[in-house]
Amino acid sequence: MHAFDRALTLHKMNDGRLAGETIPEFGNFTGQFGGITAATLLKAALMQEKAAGAPVSLTVNYTAGIKPGAFAISTRTIRLGRTLQHWGLDLMQGDVVAATALVTLGQRSDSWAHAPLAAPSVPAPENVTPLDTSDWKGWSRQYAFRFIEGSTAHLRGKPPLDVPGSARSLLWLSHVDPRPLDFPGLACMSDAFFVRLLQVRNLFPAMGTVSLTTQFHADAAMLAAQGAAPILCHVDSRVFRGNFHDQSAEMWSASGELLATSHQIVWYAE
Amino acid sequence: MHAFDRALTLHKMNDGRLAGETIPEFGNFTGQFGGITAATLLKAALMQEKAAGAPVSLTVNYTAGIKPGAFAISTRTIRLGRTLQHWGLDLMQGDVVAATALVTLGQRSDSWAHAPLAAPSVPAPENVTPLDTSDWKGWSRQYAFRFIEGSTAHLRGKPPLDVPGSARSLLWLSHVDPRPLDFPGLACMSDAFFVRLLQVRNLFPAMGTVSLTTQFHADAAMLAAQGAAPILCHVDSRVFRGNFHDQSAEMWSASGELLATSHQIVWYAE
Repeated sequence: MHAFDRALTLHKMNDGRLAGETIPEFGNFTGQFGGITAATLLKAALMQEKAAGAPVSLTVNYTAGIKPGAFAISTRTIRLGRTLQHWGLDLMQGDVVAATALVTLGQRSDSWAHAPLAAPSVPAPENVTPLDTSDWKGWSRQYAFRFIEGSTAHLRGKPPLDVPGSARSLLWLSHVDPRPLDFPGLACMSDAFFVRLLQVRNLFPAMGTVSLTTQFHADAAMLAAQGAAPILCHVDSRVFRGNFHDQSAEMWSASGELLATSHQIVWYAE
Repeated sequence: MHAFDRALTLHKMNDGRLAGETIPEFGNFTGQFGGITAATLLKAALMQEKAAGAPVSLTVNYTAGIKPGAFAISTRTIRLGRTLQHWGLDLMQGDVVAATALVTLGQRSDSWAHAPLAAPSVPAPENVTPLDTSDWKGWSRQYAFRFIEGSTAHLRGKPPLDVPGSARSLLWLSHVDPRPLDFPGLACMSDAFFVRLLQVRNLFPAMGTVSLTTQFHADAAMLAAQGAAPILCHVDSRVFRGNFHDQSAEMWSASGELLATSHQIVWYAE
């Protein structure tokens, strides 16, 4: 089984909750990678018997570090309409809510469509060398990062930047071990961009994502057409101030269609 | 009392919930304006006895139309840490959850700061004529809209656009009846941009905001410095497809500091 699917394996408990367990392949410095938490919560919503429609919006608030080991997800039906469903989910470790989420599922049809924002013009993924992550740890080894702009590789071992670097990155992102794109996969990738503070400062203070909202613009057919090919991602920040910074990402298919956008707010200690 | 503060008047009920009532000044075509719902939910979180810190993030999912009349807000403590607090709120009308929210409050300090995104260069608000909204109804009459770009005034009474118009707007926004800016006021204004579909198509199909996330980048001192002066707002959309479109806004102080960003996903029937 693919490591991603192992990480997302959930079993129904007698009390109706879903049981899961962290795996080291998706760990980070302090616990579990936030992207895999988002993907797990989305999958838990999609597993509900009454779940209908495709993911439209997912907000995850990261409320406590997730420790290696078991967790349980409780699910709340907030409102199930014909067109839209709203689900609420808590990921618990013992009595602690470690993450809480709102998931919206919706019925999509072949409506009027328009794409004001075009995908950036970039070299094809096969012409971009992936970052060497062979000595990295945790989740980042699961992905191939083909940076067109905004790699931090040249900053490794260097002192912090006096003049802030650009917060922008442009990259092709894919699983190292190929896996066809689905909604949980896209949710996970929507958080797979290094926290912008690292790139702007080349410093590693205590930091973490506080809240992540992913908006889905693709239907299942678009994801199927994408398959396991790399997706094109553009990431940037607007402001760093008072211990928090924002970070927004656009994620494009190989054929230049916007699949998802994500918006997060990050806490940092410095 | 200012209409905005009347709309946000909440009383503690015997069961611990907060009771409120819609007012026509903040109505819209189908019920209550989503911005005032967001502001009310944020105020309800800030009213909690244990609430500490400034708003960092607010996500509101609009789960049912809010009918004119009474509502009750129940509040859930998800996690109260020293640096961050996470609150969950439901706005109920009878047994129906009409809106649900996640609120993050945080302790801000004078951290390292950096603003990669500069405010757009625009004429001062006193040099921009406000839109004539004297024959409008509901919430939009509460605000003065000084459009620098992307007004839809010239489209009124005209047929739908064959070629999609720009989704972008740039405007100074303020209360018609001046009111010093605070966090609920900013939350409300973060939704006070006409749904982009109207501007792009000049059509009014059934539509509504599904989920709105507002990220706060200002502290109370910055809001106090802003006072009742107009804020500069930039709004745009990336994609309209499969009955949903996105919409992001940046909101700047009179002195060019980013106060908040908002990201919403809108459902439309067309």
